[in-house]
Amino acid sequence: MSKYQHIREEAYQANMQLPKLGLVLFTFGNVSAADRELGVFAIKPSGVPYEELSPEKMVIVDFVGKTVEGDLRPSSDTLTHAVLYNNWENINGIVHTHSTYATAWAQSQRDVPIYGTTHADHNTVDIPCAPPMSDEMIRGDYEYQTGYQIINYLQDKGISYEEVEMVLVGNHAPFTWGKTAAKAVYNSAVLEEVARMAYLTEQINPNAPRLKGSLIQKHYERKHGPHSYYGQ
Amino acid sequence: MSKYQHIREEAYQANMQLPKLGLVLFTFGNVSAADRELGVFAIKPSGVPYEELSPEKMVIVDFVGKTVEGDLRPSSDTLTHAVLYNNWENINGIVHTHSTYATAWAQSQRDVPIYGTTHADHNTVDIPCAPPMSDEMIRGDYEYQTGYQIINYLQDKGISYEEVEMVLVGNHAPFTWGKTAAKAVYNSAVLEEVARMAYLTEQINPNAPRLKGSLIQKHYERKHGPHSYYGQ
Amino acid sequence: MSKYQHIREEAYQANMQLPKLGLVLFTFGNVSAADRELGVFAIKPSGVPYEELSPEKMVIVDFVGKTVEGDLRPSSDTLTHAVLYNNWENINGIVHTHSTYATAWAQSQRDVPIYGTTHADHNTVDIPCAPPMSDEMIRGDYEYQTGYQIINYLQDKGISYEEVEMVLVGNHAPFTWGKTAAKAVYNSAVLEEVARMAYLTEQINPNAPRLKGSLIQKHYERKHGPHSYYGQ
Amino acid sequence: MSKYQHIREEAYQANMQLPKLGLVLFTFGNVSAADRELGVFAIKPSGVPYEELSPEKMVIVDFVGKTVEGDLRPSSDTLTHAVLYNNWENINGIVHTHSTYATAWAQSQRDVPIYGTTHADHNTVDIPCAPPMSDEMIRGDYEYQTGYQIINYLQDKGISYEEVEMVLVGNHAPFTWGKTAAKAVYNSAVLEEVARMAYLTEQINPNAPRLKGSLIQKHYERKHGPHSYYGQ
Repeated sequence: MSKYQHIREEAYQANMQLPKLGLVLFTFGNVSAADRELGVFAIKPSGVPYEELSPEKMVIVDFVGKTVEGDLRPSSDTLTHAVLYNNWENINGIVHTHSTYATAWAQSQRDVPIYGTTHADHNTVDIPCAPPMSDEMIRGDYEYQTGYQIINYLQDKGISYEEVEMVLVGNHAPFTWGKTAAKAVYNSAVLEEVARMAYLTEQINPNAPRLKGSLIQKHYERKHGPHSYYGQ
Repeated sequence: MSKYQHIREEAYQANMQLPKLGLVLFTFGNVSAADRELGVFAIKPSGVPYEELSPEKMVIVDFVGKTVEGDLRPSSDTLTHAVLYNNWENINGIVHTHSTYATAWAQSQRDVPIYGTTHADHNTVDIPCAPPMSDEMIRGDYEYQTGYQIINYLQDKGISYEEVEMVLVGNHAPFTWGKTAAKAVYNSAVLEEVARMAYLTEQINPNAPRLKGSLIQKHYERKHGPHSYYGQ
Repeated sequence: MSKYQHIREEAYQANMQLPKLGLVLFTFGNVSAADRELGVFAIKPSGVPYEELSPEKMVIVDFVGKTVEGDLRPSSDTLTHAVLYNNWENINGIVHTHSTYATAWAQSQRDVPIYGTTHADHNTVDIPCAPPMSDEMIRGDYEYQTGYQIINYLQDKGISYEEVEMVLVGNHAPFTWGKTAAKAVYNSAVLEEVARMAYLTEQINPNAPRLKGSLIQKHYERKHGPHSYYGQ
Repeated sequence: MSKYQHIREEAYQANMQLPKLGLVLFTFGNVSAADRELGVFAIKPSGVPYEELSPEKMVIVDFVGKTVEGDLRPSSDTLTHAVLYNNWENINGIVHTHSTYATAWAQSQRDVPIYGTTHADHNTVDIPCAPPMSDEMIRGDYEYQTGYQIINYLQDKGISYEEVEMVLVGNHAPFTWGKTAAKAVYNSAVLEEVARMAYLTEQINPNAPRLKGSLIQKHYERKHGPHSYYGQ
C-alpha cells in the first residue's frame, strides 16, 4: 500500500463533496490534501469526471509541482496549489471551483462586501478579489503565477491567510484553503452562499450598509476568538 | 427513559426538517421545542452536523438558559430561545436559520412588504426587521440581548407575537416561532418563500403597490379568523 | 366502488405532480378533475399535505360547489373551480398554485409579455393578469367572485379560455386549466417557466422587444394550428 | 438488428442527459447523433416524454430531412438538424433546448459577453446571438431556414463552427453541436452556466469589463491549443 494512502483518501473524499454541494459543473473544480511531513499533496487528476474518481486515481505531487506518484496527469491548476502550499506552511487543503455566485463576483472584479453575520462568522473583512493578472504573468507560467497573484494580493492588503481562508481571482474564480481538505471544501460552500446573499442584498437595497464593527467582532469571536463558544 | 424524551423527539424531528426544506447550509440553524409544565426546552447541540443528530443529542435547557440534561453544549443561540420562551408564554417552538432570501432582507435592513395573498395568508403586516443592536447590547450578553431586541421591537411596533410569528434581526437573520416546533419550522419555510417572492416582485415592478386592506383581511381570516375555513 | 373513482384517481395523480414539478410549498395549491356527464369534479381536500393524499381523500363537488361525496372539507378555492367549470364547458381540469415566478408577476400586477418562442408555443398573447378584485367582490363570496373576476377579465380582453389556458389574478397567484387535469398541470409548469424567463429577459435587456407577429403565429401553429406538426 | 443501432443508442443516451442536467422542461429539447458514412442521424421523436424514450424510438433521418427508419414522427426541429449536418461536415451531434438562462439571453437578443475564464475555457468570443429571422424565412420552411439563419450568421461574423460550438437564435433558444452527441450536450450545459454567470455578473457590476485578450488566449489554449494540457 502506498505511503500516501491517507491523503489519497482525504483528497478523494473532499473532491466528492464538490458535486454534492452543488459547487461544480462537470470537472470545473479540484481539491488537494497535503502531508507536510512527507512534503507532498494528493490532487484530482485533470479532466476526470467525479463519478470515475477513486483514491487510487489521485496524483501525488511535491511542493514544487513535480509528480511523485500516479499514472494520470494532475489537475491543470496543480502549480497554483504547489505555490500556495510552499508559501503558506499552515494549510493542508486547497479547493478551486467555478461555483456560480463566487465566480460572478470574480468576473465583476469586486470584493464581496461584509453585509451580515453569516459573513462575519467566517471573516472580519470583505472577501478579497485579486485583480486580473498582468499580461506578463499570464504569458509566463500561468498557474504558478496565479499562486503568487493570490499571495501578493493578500500581503498588499495586510490580510493573513490564516484568518481569511478564501479569495477570488479577478475574471477567473475562487480559491479556498484550510487546515484540512474538508475545511477548505467547507470554506468553498460558505463563500458561495455568502456571495449569493451579498448579491441579493444589493438587489434588495442598493444602499445596504456594511456590517458595523461591533457585530463583526462579536460574531467572529463567537466562532474563532480565544473565548469562542461555538461547537463542541 | 428521560422524562424529556417527548421534547427531545420533537426537537429532533423539527431540526431534521431544516435541511430537507433547504433552509440551512451545514449547521447554520437550530430548532427548540419547549414543555411549559416542565419549564424546559430541548435544543440542537452547537455545531453538530444534522446527519449526526439524534433525539439523545438534544440538550435540555431551562428558561433562564441553564443546561438541565445533556452532555453536549447547546446551540450558541440558546439564550435567545430562553429569553423568548420566558417572555412569551404561548409559544412552544422556536427556529433560527440563515435561510438565503430572508437573510438577504435582514442584511438589507428592510421589512418585507406585504405584496400578495401568500403573505396575507400568514400575516396582516409587513414582516418586521428589527434594527441592528446597539454596541452596548452587542458587547454585553449578545444572545440574551438578541432576544430582547426582538421582543422590544415587536412591542414598539405594536405587533403581537401571537399574530406575527416571524422576525428578521437586522444584519443578522430570521427567527420564527409557534405553538409547536413543527409550526415554527413551517413559519421559517413560509418566510423564506415570501421573502423570495417579494424580492422578485420588486425586480419585476419597482412600483408594485402593497396589498390592499380588504384582501389582507380576507386572506388572513380565511386561515386564521373565527370563521376560518381553511384546513380540516 | 364509487362511480367517481376515475376522477378521484385523475385528480389524485394530477395533485401529486405539483410538488414533483416544484410548483407548491406545503399545501399551497390544488387540482381538480371534472366529469361533465356526471356534472361533478374531484378536488383536493383543504390543507391536507400532499404526502397524505390518496384517491379516496379527494372530495366530489358539483358545479355549484356543493359536496356530493367525501368526508373531508374540499379546498378553500373550490368555489372558484366550480364557477369556471360552470361557465366554461370545454374544460375538465383546473389548477391553482402559488408558484414562485408566476406569483411574483401577479404581485407585480403585470401581464407577462411574450418575449420568445417558448411562450408562443403555448399562447399568442401576453399572459393576462386580472386586476385585484374590488372591495365589494372581496367582502362578498370571495372564491366565487374570483372565478368571475377571471371570466370577466378574459372576456373584456377578448381572450378565449380555449386558446389561453392560464391567468394571473393580481396580488394573488395563477390559475390554469385544460381539457384534462394533467393538461392543466402541464400549463402551470409552462406558465412558471415562461414567467421566469420573462423576468430574466427584462433583467438582461430592459428594452427587450416583444416577439414579432410572424414568429408568434408560426410557433403557435406548429403546435396548435390545423396543420400542426408537433407530437405524434 | 438495425444497422443504425449505434446512433440510436448514442442519441438515446444523449437525450436522457438533458433532464438530468436540468436543461429541459417536459419535451422542450432534442438531441441527434449522426453517422457520416451512412449519411443519416438518429433524433428524438416529437413530443415523446423523456421517461418513455428508448433507443428503438429514435427516428433515423437523412441529411435532407427524409425519414429512413422509424415509426414515429421525428422532432419538429429535424430540418434544422439536417441543414446543419449537411453544411458542416465535421459535426456528429446537435442539441436544441430551451434552457432557462440561455433562452433569456436569446429573448434579450444579445450576445453573451465573455466575462471570465469559464467562458474562455470554451470560446474565445462572445456567444453569438443570431437576429430573429425575416418574415419571409419564417413563413417559408421555418425549421429549414432556422438552420440557414445559424449558418449565415456565423459566416457573417467570421466565426468557425468548429471553434464556437454554440449559438443563440434571437427570440428563440440555443443550439449547440460537437464531434459527438455527448459533446454537444456538454456544450449545452456549459452555455447555460456561462449565460447564468454573465447575467449575474452584470447585476453585480453593470460596468464589468470583458475579459482581456491575454486571458482569453491563455485559457482557451490550456484546453484546446496545440500545447493544451487539460485532461488526460
